[in-house]
Amino acid sequence: MEITNSIRKLVKSLGDSRHRNEQRLFVAEGEKCVTETLGAFKLKYLFATRRWIEENQGVAKRFGAVAATSDDISRMSQLKAPRPVIAVYEMPEETNRPELSNNQLVLALDRIQDPGNLGTIIRIADWFGIKTILASEDTVDRFNPKVVQATMGAIGRVSIIYCDLSSTLAELSESMPVYGTFLDGDDIYHTDLTGNGIIVMGNEGNGISDQVSSSVNRRLFIPPYPADASTVESLNVSMATAITVAEFRRRNSR
Amino acid sequence: MEITNSIRKLVKSLGDSRHRNEQRLFVAEGEKCVTETLGAFKLKYLFATRRWIEENQGVAKRFGAVAATSDDISRMSQLKAPRPVIAVYEMPEETNRPELSNNQLVLALDRIQDPGNLGTIIRIADWFGIKTILASEDTVDRFNPKVVQATMGAIGRVSIIYCDLSSTLAELSESMPVYGTFLDGDDIYHTDLTGNGIIVMGNEGNGISDQVSSSVNRRLFIPPYPADASTVESLNVSMATAITVAEFRRRNSR
Repeated sequence: MEITNSIRKLVKSLGDSRHRNEQRLFVAEGEKCVTETLGAFKLKYLFATRRWIEENQGVAKRFGAVAATSDDISRMSQLKAPRPVIAVYEMPEETNRPELSNNQLVLALDRIQDPGNLGTIIRIADWFGIKTILASEDTVDRFNPKVVQATMGAIGRVSIIYCDLSSTLAELSESMPVYGTFLDGDDIYHTDLTGNGIIVMGNEGNGISDQVSSSVNRRLFIPPYPADASTVESLNVSMATAITVAEFRRRNSR
Repeated sequence: MEITNSIRKLVKSLGDSRHRNEQRLFVAEGEKCVTETLGAFKLKYLFATRRWIEENQGVAKRFGAVAATSDDISRMSQLKAPRPVIAVYEMPEETNRPELSNNQLVLALDRIQDPGNLGTIIRIADWFGIKTILASEDTVDRFNPKVVQATMGAIGRVSIIYCDLSSTLAELSESMPVYGTFLDGDDIYHTDLTGNGIIVMGNEGNGISDQVSSSVNRRLFIPPYPADASTVESLNVSMATAITVAEFRRRNSR
């Protein structure tokens, strides 16, 4: 196939959420991110430099890589420093009706805005065996190229379901523990943590919204050190997620 | 004082490390970051919009805020969306000879490259009462505006000492435990963790260098979940730092 100007423009346009949603396509860039996601999503195009194709003949052949010049890639890339390979994937079918089993640990994100934070949280979920993330409809798009990049491929292994978070949690809270971190919550290290349930993480500036927090039935707090240190500061949402999820898994590993 | 063109150029130039080091000055931008650092460093200039000055009369007066137009601020700012206040500070005197007492917990950073990661790690240190961070000379500059921004002011409360990390750790390892995380380390949850010591965190892509790792005398590993999950992936360095430091503090809080 030939890389026409309209293809270059199409790929480039996928940096924009409106175009992504119209086309139902998204991109992954860079060796690591591409090789980790090949097979996880339906592939539309795989563009790579001749050199990359030569060095990765097996993968290149299996997935039908199309040779591109560095100039082609620069014109398609979202990155300041373009990498030798770009994959364009079809968006999977969406659901906004999560079906959760009762023995799962699930994350719920209330209006996470920063693509780097969402990507990092997906990576944390992947490391700690969390398969499902619920996200409020106003959480940043998981197919934003910066999110995909920050997941380092974990986006192919964790499913993110955008939904009306407050009504979904209101319903789920009747049958499952719903945890959230708050500055006035209970010390996470002195609280019973179940192996299943939902852990809600809130917006970077404003935390968990009032509507969502009314469904939280277990309020947690990560203590600073020493425990009586002033807490004018707070941990950012990715760090709080990492520490909280690690603690749930530690507690329920034995 | 008048905001001349040469002042605007000077402030703008501090985005560049060469200019920062020549001038021995650095910037902090935005309400949160500025108010948290005022008093922590010697102030050279404080520029703010008239509106900010009106809304923060006490601080503005105490620190001699100079009224600036939005245009002035845009021309001085490193941010895509400039904020109403910019502080220019003098760099504190440097030391590369850390004096560590034996009952401290200290972080050591081996070639951390990403400003966001360094900023996040400084914030973690601040939350968990770590006062000193050692950094290899090739770690990103702590006065990089993106680092300062990402610390949300914590840069004023944590001291970062750039030094020859491998020789410094070689010396310290004779009298202190030196921890590091490795994929083949011991499960952090089943290992003795002392209340003092040095925790080494490594470069984003390559981990801890061979030279530095030869001084690590306690090798740790953060287990994924389930514990036998494949670990092709790894946690990023900020997340690993958050989980590791939280675990040290949890263990030594009682």
